[in-house]
Amino acid sequence: MSDSTISRRTFLKVSGAIGSVGAAPVFSARGQTSSEETEVTAKLARYIVDSRWSDVPDSARKEATRSVLNWVGCALGGSQEPSAVNALEALSEFSGPRVASILGRRERLDILHASLLNGITSHVLDFDDTHLDTIIHPAGPVAPALLALAEKQKVIGAEFLHAFILGVETECRIGKAVYPWHYDQGYHITGTAGVFGAAAASGKILGLDARQMTWAIGIAATQSAGLREMFGTMCKSFHPGRAAQNGLTAALLASKNFTSSEHSLEATRGFANTMSAEHDFTHVTKGLGETFEVERNTYKPFACGIVIHPIIDGCVQLRNEHGLEPSDITRVELRVNPLVLELTGKKTPSTGLEGKFSVFHSAAVAFVRGSAGQKEYTDDAVRDRTIVAVRDRVSATVDPAVREEEAYVSVTLEDGRTIDKHVEHAIGSLERPMTDTDLEAKFRGQAEGVLSGARTRRLIELCWGVSSIDDAGDIARDAVPA
Amino acid sequence: MSDSTISRRTFLKVSGAIGSVGAAPVFSARGQTSSEETEVTAKLARYIVDSRWSDVPDSARKEATRSVLNWVGCALGGSQEPSAVNALEALSEFSGPRVASILGRRERLDILHASLLNGITSHVLDFDDTHLDTIIHPAGPVAPALLALAEKQKVIGAEFLHAFILGVETECRIGKAVYPWHYDQGYHITGTAGVFGAAAASGKILGLDARQMTWAIGIAATQSAGLREMFGTMCKSFHPGRAAQNGLTAALLASKNFTSSEHSLEATRGFANTMSAEHDFTHVTKGLGETFEVERNTYKPFACGIVIHPIIDGCVQLRNEHGLEPSDITRVELRVNPLVLELTGKKTPSTGLEGKFSVFHSAAVAFVRGSAGQKEYTDDAVRDRTIVAVRDRVSATVDPAVREEEAYVSVTLEDGRTIDKHVEHAIGSLERPMTDTDLEAKFRGQAEGVLSGARTRRLIELCWGVSSIDDAGDIARDAVPA
Repeated sequence: MSDSTISRRTFLKVSGAIGSVGAAPVFSARGQTSSEETEVTAKLARYIVDSRWSDVPDSARKEATRSVLNWVGCALGGSQEPSAVNALEALSEFSGPRVASILGRRERLDILHASLLNGITSHVLDFDDTHLDTIIHPAGPVAPALLALAEKQKVIGAEFLHAFILGVETECRIGKAVYPWHYDQGYHITGTAGVFGAAAASGKILGLDARQMTWAIGIAATQSAGLREMFGTMCKSFHPGRAAQNGLTAALLASKNFTSSEHSLEATRGFANTMSAEHDFTHVTKGLGETFEVERNTYKPFACGIVIHPIIDGCVQLRNEHGLEPSDITRVELRVNPLVLELTGKKTPSTGLEGKFSVFHSAAVAFVRGSAGQKEYTDDAVRDRTIVAVRDRVSATVDPAVREEEAYVSVTLEDGRTIDKHVEHAIGSLERPMTDTDLEAKFRGQAEGVLSGARTRRLIELCWGVSSIDDAGDIARDAVPA
Repeated sequence: MSDSTISRRTFLKVSGAIGSVGAAPVFSARGQTSSEETEVTAKLARYIVDSRWSDVPDSARKEATRSVLNWVGCALGGSQEPSAVNALEALSEFSGPRVASILGRRERLDILHASLLNGITSHVLDFDDTHLDTIIHPAGPVAPALLALAEKQKVIGAEFLHAFILGVETECRIGKAVYPWHYDQGYHITGTAGVFGAAAASGKILGLDARQMTWAIGIAATQSAGLREMFGTMCKSFHPGRAAQNGLTAALLASKNFTSSEHSLEATRGFANTMSAEHDFTHVTKGLGETFEVERNTYKPFACGIVIHPIIDGCVQLRNEHGLEPSDITRVELRVNPLVLELTGKKTPSTGLEGKFSVFHSAAVAFVRGSAGQKEYTDDAVRDRTIVAVRDRVSATVDPAVREEEAYVSVTLEDGRTIDKHVEHAIGSLERPMTDTDLEAKFRGQAEGVLSGARTRRLIELCWGVSSIDDAGDIARDAVPA
């Protein structure tokens, strides 16, 4: 780079003339986008502001309700994790008015800090929901902000669910516009796109007008952050938490006319151009109000990576269909996609965490316990004699002809018979969604040891009825130990 | 993209196996960096932790003191701006214990919110310091976090200044490693690199060990945010404010063992690879403790873009050398680099903000008032009859042979004489730094109308003596109206 290049750049930038006040259009950084891309942010903001509850079809309301139920369960399940404990220890002393709950815990925090904590707990076990088209975990950034707001001011259930649906719509559409490039580049999209969802949902509750909503989106854009390098550390679940907190902050600021760019998504130096190698804004603007991304949300039945789910599913089915006991099983042979062993080939896991990377342990718990929830991935579980005994009888061969969604399980029984199962799509996929009963069972497993049985039942009822309850804040208030 | 590509990607990512627990090195996303790049974060963290006050040369202490003084003045100068007022209105109700001051104001906030507010006020007028090699405004993200901490716990002046120097070192070195690519891509580097400075400085005060310091840097990295598209809106000054607040949060979390990646700068999906097209880590690791970036900090004498500074400087010099009165001036001819008219060619500004984009107005105030501070860029100033009269006599011609740092001013006087001035480097450049007396005068101008004269004098003294004062928090406590 020549000196004159440095000099020119320095002058252009240090001058402050490029943008520091930037009112004059002649200095605008924009203008390189095609005509159909110039009002992306404004169109989205207008949609969020104009959307009415009566415009939202039953199918979206239903799936949103399932998402909320699943999210509340995940927040309970992760509520005692060290990530939450350490964050609380670090930040609780700075809390403002403690009007908001941390689901599953007795401490209370101001609504901004509560958003952070509930975002952390709901994602920390990687057991929350997944929007497969973008691999965003949609509820994590949106629900905590909304629920905290609902504890501060009265929000009726329908209003809450409506804002939740719009938040999910916003983050998933923006995510789709930059996926996969943005993710491949290294961004944790649940954080970077999630902040928009939290801002939109919070802004809807706060009653922002269209211009304020563009500011809220802009203030979210300029806080969009989160690196995939953090995977494997406490910062991974920090991402949806911070996205919730920052999105809520964005909406609060916008409500007091704290300004931002009104073209934050599409501008030359806006979100998409700066943070993604490519983008397609039709995902943001096309069919707004006609389709609902929340309907494409999925929920994990098993507390491990999705790559093992078809296998666990097959093992559980065989166990239940044939009433298998561990002692009935002589040999288990798995035929799987190569990725399975590449990612989860650990033969003898010694910790619960390692168990998540063992297809052998996962198959064993499926046979022994008929499930693969949190409790099947503890240090105790991987050392359990019965589980270890079955695990040692499991072998796996890879077959590139087996799709990643697919698995073949073959069990040789003590009596010499062989039984087989072919799974085309695992339970929890879009093709075979978890039933409401499945989701309830998952919820109860996550609430165990956190809430009493009676409280858990009442909370489940409250979640199913969210669209008609009088005060959405009750969900948070009822999700803490008595 | 083929279906199988989608599917594989989805599986790899949704599985959680890539990183969601990610403890097993076999799944590590790293390993593509060359050997000298593998311990960048750790080396920097080790340096910050090990650095002792006695290792810091006088030259760095002196320039850091000047930086602190300049920053305090800027925070006072911006303290009444709408950006600060609106942010306060939106967020004050969520404040925790109100132990920290907002410089120039009577409200108090918890240390996290105070960091945000003081970051906003100190940058909102674009009158703060500039590290020319990276165009980072170094004090904005660092000083607010440190000063807030110093109001919560006793921090002696030397410790404060030491942490400030290390914070500036951290943000500027990281900034240099990714400049200009990162900036050109659209990131506002004062926000994106500044968060590292705030984390390092705060972490030094909190006494983090080396591992915790790598976490603090990592938690900063995963919050690194800020888009240039926000220039011209309230979000521009939000960036250093949020960087201060987020960096302080990072250090607080790390102090309670909230973990992050320990390779956040250099990892394949870490800060540099994700957020910059290119990077050079030698800027981070080479000569640590031998050179000090704070010594390359500069301060603006004039409250407008640097591109006009040589011209203002020349006009002020002619005015003072010849005792010029407005009525003496018949014609002013400027010969300037083409950028000057490109960026600041507004002939008849109608607002103070537009005045910053008018080389004509800027030359006029230099002749009429002998300065170009905040008060020269108000709505009143651009309408002032005397100033307008001089402005109308100013013409400018561009000449590519004139360097950007340079200007030629020629004045034809009422008596027919012509006087000339050639400025090679404007006051405020590294080549012609503002003197301590200049900095004091700038400070007084910024404090006017905010603090009493007596309080201003005492505060200036306190800043000059920062390295030997007993309690750095006194700077904040003394920087509010009595």
